[in-house]
Amino acid sequence: MIALQSKNLQRVRCGVLTVEIEHVDVETLEKLELQGVDCQPKASTIRIIQDKYLQKVHFSQHDIPLPEFMQIDDLEGAKRAGDLFGYPLMIKSKRLAYDGRGNAVAKSEDELSSAVTALGGFDRGLYVEKWAPFVKELAVIVARGRDNSILCYPAVETIHKENICHIVKAPANMSWKIRELATDIASRAVSSLEGAGVFAVELFLTKDDQILLNEVAPRPHNSGHHTIESCYTSQYEQHLRAVVGLPLGDPSMKTPAAIMYNLLGEDEGEPGFHLAHQLIARALCIPGATVHWYDKPEMRKQRKMGHITIVGPSVGNVEKLLDSMLNEESSESQSAVAPRVGIVMGSDSDLPVMKDAAKVLNMFGVPNEVRIVSAHRTPELMYSYALSARERGIQVIIAGAGGAAHLPGMVAALTPLPVIGVPVRASTLDGVDSLLSIVQMPRGVPVATVAVNNATNAGLLAVRMLSVCDADLLSRMSQYQEDTRNEVLTKAEKLQKDGWESYLNP
Amino acid sequence: MIALQSKNLQRVRCGVLTVEIEHVDVETLEKLELQGVDCQPKASTIRIIQDKYLQKVHFSQHDIPLPEFMQIDDLEGAKRAGDLFGYPLMIKSKRLAYDGRGNAVAKSEDELSSAVTALGGFDRGLYVEKWAPFVKELAVIVARGRDNSILCYPAVETIHKENICHIVKAPANMSWKIRELATDIASRAVSSLEGAGVFAVELFLTKDDQILLNEVAPRPHNSGHHTIESCYTSQYEQHLRAVVGLPLGDPSMKTPAAIMYNLLGEDEGEPGFHLAHQLIARALCIPGATVHWYDKPEMRKQRKMGHITIVGPSVGNVEKLLDSMLNEESSESQSAVAPRVGIVMGSDSDLPVMKDAAKVLNMFGVPNEVRIVSAHRTPELMYSYALSARERGIQVIIAGAGGAAHLPGMVAALTPLPVIGVPVRASTLDGVDSLLSIVQMPRGVPVATVAVNNATNAGLLAVRMLSVCDADLLSRMSQYQEDTRNEVLTKAEKLQKDGWESYLNP
Repeated sequence: MIALQSKNLQRVRCGVLTVEIEHVDVETLEKLELQGVDCQPKASTIRIIQDKYLQKVHFSQHDIPLPEFMQIDDLEGAKRAGDLFGYPLMIKSKRLAYDGRGNAVAKSEDELSSAVTALGGFDRGLYVEKWAPFVKELAVIVARGRDNSILCYPAVETIHKENICHIVKAPANMSWKIRELATDIASRAVSSLEGAGVFAVELFLTKDDQILLNEVAPRPHNSGHHTIESCYTSQYEQHLRAVVGLPLGDPSMKTPAAIMYNLLGEDEGEPGFHLAHQLIARALCIPGATVHWYDKPEMRKQRKMGHITIVGPSVGNVEKLLDSMLNEESSESQSAVAPRVGIVMGSDSDLPVMKDAAKVLNMFGVPNEVRIVSAHRTPELMYSYALSARERGIQVIIAGAGGAAHLPGMVAALTPLPVIGVPVRASTLDGVDSLLSIVQMPRGVPVATVAVNNATNAGLLAVRMLSVCDADLLSRMSQYQEDTRNEVLTKAEKLQKDGWESYLNP
Repeated sequence: MIALQSKNLQRVRCGVLTVEIEHVDVETLEKLELQGVDCQPKASTIRIIQDKYLQKVHFSQHDIPLPEFMQIDDLEGAKRAGDLFGYPLMIKSKRLAYDGRGNAVAKSEDELSSAVTALGGFDRGLYVEKWAPFVKELAVIVARGRDNSILCYPAVETIHKENICHIVKAPANMSWKIRELATDIASRAVSSLEGAGVFAVELFLTKDDQILLNEVAPRPHNSGHHTIESCYTSQYEQHLRAVVGLPLGDPSMKTPAAIMYNLLGEDEGEPGFHLAHQLIARALCIPGATVHWYDKPEMRKQRKMGHITIVGPSVGNVEKLLDSMLNEESSESQSAVAPRVGIVMGSDSDLPVMKDAAKVLNMFGVPNEVRIVSAHRTPELMYSYALSARERGIQVIIAGAGGAAHLPGMVAALTPLPVIGVPVRASTLDGVDSLLSIVQMPRGVPVATVAVNNATNAGLLAVRMLSVCDADLLSRMSQYQEDTRNEVLTKAEKLQKDGWESYLNP
């Protein structure tokens, strides 16, 4: 950037100038703007962003919720801040902070001095932030077009290790309300800045469900790498669309879930030196995994050397795959595919009926698990099974029960997944008790009820549900219907040919 | 290729040599192989493929089903072929045929001579093929690793216009059995060739459900361009994995459907000269559409200049989007989003109940349509509605009916989509008739039955089904459950605070 002379830019008739990192010479950028070079985002934005203290002042002026902060100019000031905000206290460099560099934590007043020294002293420009007791770190990639139209990617959870982004989960596993709140704050933060492009907004989620802004990057960002494989428009295409003035692309996810793992540089000689290459070798065998190796000229400890993204049908599924990649042992048992359908029943006496659901699912190649979970005799187990099913990657639950059949409805009350109920005929009332106990659910909690004892249909219904987003399964269901039709037609033909007497007495 | 000297290859220490087009100098390739250069696929494969007649002989020797064919050396031979195979007769060049060049059709014996002349005469090497009365053209991309492991991408339908690929639909809309047959033949064809890489196998589907091989390309192919956006592993990454000996990647689709449209060159001065650019401009506004412009130095009529791929939740959906891109008028009404849930009922008297399903779907932002379709009074309408629903992009059907309530079950019998049944309470029997008519379906055809008159739960169940592959919807369903819980807790608190007397008599 510094080397770029404005004359050169004019000579090559630069259409638009953008940045891939905010640590550029903003004076030159401003000069270029004055000379008519079209910078997106604007130099004013880069100026605000590259000084983290200025950034905090800017966003607080625009009513964006932030952790409390104040500038410190000397040790006395730092101590006053410590008295005001308490410890641990986060001390930060105003400028050139990146991937955790420029941050230091003082656990007590005694550590203030050494923390300041570690950051290069007060001359570097320091400020402090009140410790944000977050439960999760989130990020929202926001795209703004030249026409100021704004689109947000789904909020993700970022997991840091030693201040460096380690894992990104998309979408973040949290309530819709919090996702909307995070998206709203991210969108407002970007609206307060000038110029087009993609912006990454890093956020804290606190214990009491508040969202606080951490910082903004005016460019594609590590927390958006997953979009390359998981979204209709990647953050890189989106940035180009935004800065050149094309319509923004759809930011929504085309796969239900994604997880991104950063490949960080290691010290040479460490036992883990070749860890990245081992992970890449394993990733190449994982369905839905894509390896990105940046081929940087030099490996340095903790430097981002590449990343691996795994996309799949559910967060539970991609987490399991990442786990199998990171742990050699579990990768050996990787062939144990994660079940997509859970079949539960109140008692082993239901098994002779319920097995038919498993048979159908096996026929269609849908991985499933069969468990005994009684609403009345193991309520804790039912509770934990229903609550954990979604996280474990289960997509549909089939529940069978007889008599006062509470299992399907109770499970449906505890999970957002679709639940299919199979009324099992108990010893009295011919199954009417089971049927009515399962089907007559109150408004708000549906159970997809099938005929008494008809677990086959429960299996088929689960396949139809999964085929909503699986063209192969849908096609196999059509084939099943055709095969069934042909079976009946064969019988019809035989009856017509042989007559009913010999049909009944062959 | 011809210019590549073997010495140069050795000097740069070429790890593996592959081709991006089969029309290369195969003698040089064979020489290089003899000198130890690792060619994938093998020169022997390129030799077979680049002579279409040799290719046909090879595959017929390996029992791959093909249209009948024979070499012709003179007009007498051509006439004998015409007598044998009938007309129209397909005459083809053995070599350098590409994108329809090298094919000519003789509709009768009179046209034989001019067809041969159009192809450059018998000296060019010609053969004839019996006209394949196909109903669809299909293609299967097959990957073979260096360890001879084979993986097939889902079979696609290719639609040609003037012998040039125009549109590719993935997956092909046909029965599972035919997809398996196509995949099997493609896989066997590639197994008969030597070397690793990606191969495109073009096939004919005939009226009587036979699959015939048309031809094979030993490289990534136009029919696999959709894989870039729609599959876990694109055909290009797969080709590289295959030739360098990495494990093959998962070839399955990560989006349920994709459609690819080729941008062909136009004559300058034609009114349609800027058509490609108009289409690109429209595509940039279509969710799920990705534009590829090859930036070839020169535009020629019918030359492939780029392509646009649209991915989405169903074939019906992406077809609709493509249609809106190709037809300016319909693109204006594009805001009319394709419904994902169809709500049908036997009579307008069911509407006061069934409207609740639409209300729920609207609340969750799920596009839906509401229709009167009576099983008993409009059986034809019911038949066509159920049969066309899937193609139109409908993913779940909610059907309500009362009394002898046949609509849900009949619809379920005609579609592979999941069908939710709402028993509507009719004037007698308090809804028991409706409930039992809907829920007690025979083995093979499931209806997901909800409580009598509870169309709200039908709507919620449809949302749960769609959320199987939609993390946003799943998160919103969790939020709905939390909101419902909080509503009840507020009431519980009020009751506890006020006492039951004042609760009932405020």
